[in-house]
Amino acid sequence: MPSDIEIAQQAQMKKITEIAASLGLPADVVEQYGHYKAKLDMASLSTAQQNEIFSRPDGKLILVTAISPTPAGEGKTTTTVGLGDALNRIGKQAMICLREPCMGPVFGSKGGAAGGGYAQVVPMEDINLHFTGDFSAIAFAHNLLSSMIDNHIHQGNALGIDPSQVSWKRVMELNDRALRQVVIGLGGKANGQTREDGFDIVVASEVMAIFCLAENLNDLKQRLGNIVIGYSFEGQPITARDLKADGAMTVLLKNALKPNLVQTLEHTPAFIHGGPFANIAHGCNSVISTRLALKLAEYVVTEAGFGADLGAEKFIDIKCRKTGLRPDACVIVATIRALKYHGGVDVKDCSQENLVALKAGLVNLEKHVENITQHYGLHCIVSINQFTTDTEAEFAVVSECMASLGVKVVLAEHWASGGAGAERLANEVVKQIEANTSKLKYVYDDTDTLWEKMRKVATKIYGAADIAASRKIKTQIEKLQADGYGHYPICIAKTQSSFASDPTLSGAPTGHIVTIQQVRLCAGAEFIVMICDDMVTMPGLPKDPCATRIDIDADGKVVGIF
Amino acid sequence: MPSDIEIAQQAQMKKITEIAASLGLPADVVEQYGHYKAKLDMASLSTAQQNEIFSRPDGKLILVTAISPTPAGEGKTTTTVGLGDALNRIGKQAMICLREPCMGPVFGSKGGAAGGGYAQVVPMEDINLHFTGDFSAIAFAHNLLSSMIDNHIHQGNALGIDPSQVSWKRVMELNDRALRQVVIGLGGKANGQTREDGFDIVVASEVMAIFCLAENLNDLKQRLGNIVIGYSFEGQPITARDLKADGAMTVLLKNALKPNLVQTLEHTPAFIHGGPFANIAHGCNSVISTRLALKLAEYVVTEAGFGADLGAEKFIDIKCRKTGLRPDACVIVATIRALKYHGGVDVKDCSQENLVALKAGLVNLEKHVENITQHYGLHCIVSINQFTTDTEAEFAVVSECMASLGVKVVLAEHWASGGAGAERLANEVVKQIEANTSKLKYVYDDTDTLWEKMRKVATKIYGAADIAASRKIKTQIEKLQADGYGHYPICIAKTQSSFASDPTLSGAPTGHIVTIQQVRLCAGAEFIVMICDDMVTMPGLPKDPCATRIDIDADGKVVGIF
Repeated sequence: MPSDIEIAQQAQMKKITEIAASLGLPADVVEQYGHYKAKLDMASLSTAQQNEIFSRPDGKLILVTAISPTPAGEGKTTTTVGLGDALNRIGKQAMICLREPCMGPVFGSKGGAAGGGYAQVVPMEDINLHFTGDFSAIAFAHNLLSSMIDNHIHQGNALGIDPSQVSWKRVMELNDRALRQVVIGLGGKANGQTREDGFDIVVASEVMAIFCLAENLNDLKQRLGNIVIGYSFEGQPITARDLKADGAMTVLLKNALKPNLVQTLEHTPAFIHGGPFANIAHGCNSVISTRLALKLAEYVVTEAGFGADLGAEKFIDIKCRKTGLRPDACVIVATIRALKYHGGVDVKDCSQENLVALKAGLVNLEKHVENITQHYGLHCIVSINQFTTDTEAEFAVVSECMASLGVKVVLAEHWASGGAGAERLANEVVKQIEANTSKLKYVYDDTDTLWEKMRKVATKIYGAADIAASRKIKTQIEKLQADGYGHYPICIAKTQSSFASDPTLSGAPTGHIVTIQQVRLCAGAEFIVMICDDMVTMPGLPKDPCATRIDIDADGKVVGIF
Repeated sequence: MPSDIEIAQQAQMKKITEIAASLGLPADVVEQYGHYKAKLDMASLSTAQQNEIFSRPDGKLILVTAISPTPAGEGKTTTTVGLGDALNRIGKQAMICLREPCMGPVFGSKGGAAGGGYAQVVPMEDINLHFTGDFSAIAFAHNLLSSMIDNHIHQGNALGIDPSQVSWKRVMELNDRALRQVVIGLGGKANGQTREDGFDIVVASEVMAIFCLAENLNDLKQRLGNIVIGYSFEGQPITARDLKADGAMTVLLKNALKPNLVQTLEHTPAFIHGGPFANIAHGCNSVISTRLALKLAEYVVTEAGFGADLGAEKFIDIKCRKTGLRPDACVIVATIRALKYHGGVDVKDCSQENLVALKAGLVNLEKHVENITQHYGLHCIVSINQFTTDTEAEFAVVSECMASLGVKVVLAEHWASGGAGAERLANEVVKQIEANTSKLKYVYDDTDTLWEKMRKVATKIYGAADIAASRKIKTQIEKLQADGYGHYPICIAKTQSSFASDPTLSGAPTGHIVTIQQVRLCAGAEFIVMICDDMVTMPGLPKDPCATRIDIDADGKVVGIF
């Protein structure tokens, strides 16, 4: 089979104006970015046209999530794409909503993030590179605020900002470990106040989270203004609004906030908009694009980052809680290979039949299913991304186990066959939605204390015995509670590789303690980030980064992105 | 009169597809970025179509330059726009080529850079903000190389890069003085090697200069590969190619390299592409866009940054020397107000008639005229941007003075009246081009030593008595000469406010000494930067930055960019 980029480059794409027209959108709305990408400017419609669209009943929302990620690969994005294509093939009108890939990991070790095989969004290389510039705009807005903080201090510091209490760092859109911890403002008075600082990757920026949670431009501006950048010498919080940065930051994000429209290989319309990390942030595409998709399509397939303990939990406890959005069905993606990995098999041996390891590894899937059905209240379907090395006996083991929980398992072959390979999955999803058995629940209540919220997620979702924190962190949490932030949801940053905060604990560990190492107030995003163990918010490049293989060939074609 | 942004927002723009069609370009070439911006993908044409276009004779090239900038304002970009519009009005087929504005200064104190009054390029706010993302791509390519350097050192340093001899810094697309001098890699082994570093503003990046000098994608890749990032412990130069970064950097710039097409308020087609600083870099838009414009229009009006001592000198000694491009005429922009400022009048008094100061300040214009005619060999026309406070007596003084040098002076009113206000200028330019008296000369020869090149520019163009440098700098220059870089042109970074390197010396100082403070090898751009006095390559924000006034209004319209 050809490589992902070969398949993508050979695709016969439709003009993006055609894709927009297939959604019933007038041409004026379509701001083209080249022939195959567009931003949709709904504000260019008349009030009557806007009212017509936004008063329609919502389509059905399908959340695609997964078991805990392993090096053996799962395929959440390919399933989202394949399911969208399959729904269209079986006569439904569907579209998909994804996050934008971050360029940093594309040049590191992760490669692209636009699906794979015959279940991809295209133009693949554009989506993986600058796309429509949203992340650059977000990085610029973030760093403008950073610069205005240091400038304010340098120009007399009228607000009395304590340089040692500035928590607003800087960001870069790439993997750069040397920027994690830096000292800035060296070289004398003309270069400002010397202080410690650091860089996060842009997808970890609070601006990214705000961007993805904002309902509209005014809400965006309000939230940006609410960002707390640190504290004054008197201990008062200093906001972006105090620095008069909110207006300029909003202007920088004005175009970015319009949803990006592209297509799958089979011409299913796809919004790819916003891309917060699923650990340090909430891991879902923008609320604006999800809402619009629900007005334009009968079925909207979306995904949330990493496994169902991270992405799906935040999708529900943050995105749904704050917006009223409700998934009508949930698909949980697994592979036989990955389940064997969770059962203790080395990644290089995952292609061999191993029923014992498979049975052992199934606990990971079982725990995610339990979380989705019991704690999130959603009906779920398990989709197994088929590999040629999977055996019938192995599939039977998975089916049997799930049947005992009342959960249906479907084999999906969209990677090799496109939408046709996911028709069984599509039919099952439609059946479940029509049965209408999902009743969304949250893991915690708004009125729970921050500590209690963290404890509920850790014990219910992660299977932990309890949570722990140092005296210093506990005091910080108590201060946030006392300062009136107790009603915020929490956004937990922990490893995606395990239910526990130790990435080496595969399967479904229990009895572990989750330790909170850092707490961050995100007053603009309106959540409290709880960082567990040594979560890195700025990745490094590997020994042999993808960047050394990404190139143009003699014809000027891009090679080496996978 | 309404403000610049009000005029721009009220403009009745044509669709960019229409503007492209007016240049005879097929629709396939036009990659739209919204309705009013596009990139032109000439590679999408058939070989026959490409041959047809690129075998046409070149149009006429008009260089717009200026006296030494003052706070009283000159209006080089408005003249470029007004002249382009006026040429079309008098029945010629004209287009313009400009640099892209850098966002940093837009949020600092400079404001926008898309012309002004009724001589603007539009959509003004898009051009001043992210535009088509070129600068983000350039910043990313630059910083990817930075990250790969530190990663290489961290991962075993097979090339033996000396961390204390890495000269490749990082860049940001904004004004941020606190990043000028930093220490990176703090926090222990996992965060890489601790070392000194610093950030330049993106327009000072060598990648920006390379981007603007590259003839095509392959040339771009070669030049990126040639970048010298520093030296090994053995004193050997380390290149981007050694780090295998050149391919990925080229891929990041692939789309950016396509020229950006927009329009003036009067629908004159405009390429706005690339934007290197006119001090630390060479200050001209991309070679690719200038070449293409010359194939698409009879007359192409372009500008070079700052005064004729900086922008025009580099336009000729770097861009023309390296590409064979030749200006057919040169317009030098001045205002009566600015000339009075050069004569010693405070900026707040520049609106009052003052013939004595005007006569004193005329020396600045005279020296620039001498440089253009005698040292660059170009015929020049002086264009006076009219202010309502200018008097007839003042204009007469300027005309008389210039007449004695055989130079024509034209009053231009495009700021208030659009292209109609620059028709006299347009007619004069056409007359001069038809007379064909320009014979381009370079200020120095390729075979001159680097020191001699610097001395020739300083003594001939700046009126200096001589140049000077410390022992250390002299040794560096000698090493570059010995290492085989002596045939490169030089790119001088000095203040734009004076012929001297002291910004307070207005008029036309003579007898001064120009001191070289820093030397930088740009082996990709193929020039040697000579930094004189304390040139800042990362600006700071002012006490009251524009960013605090840039905002969206209740209707979501951008306000506060001027």
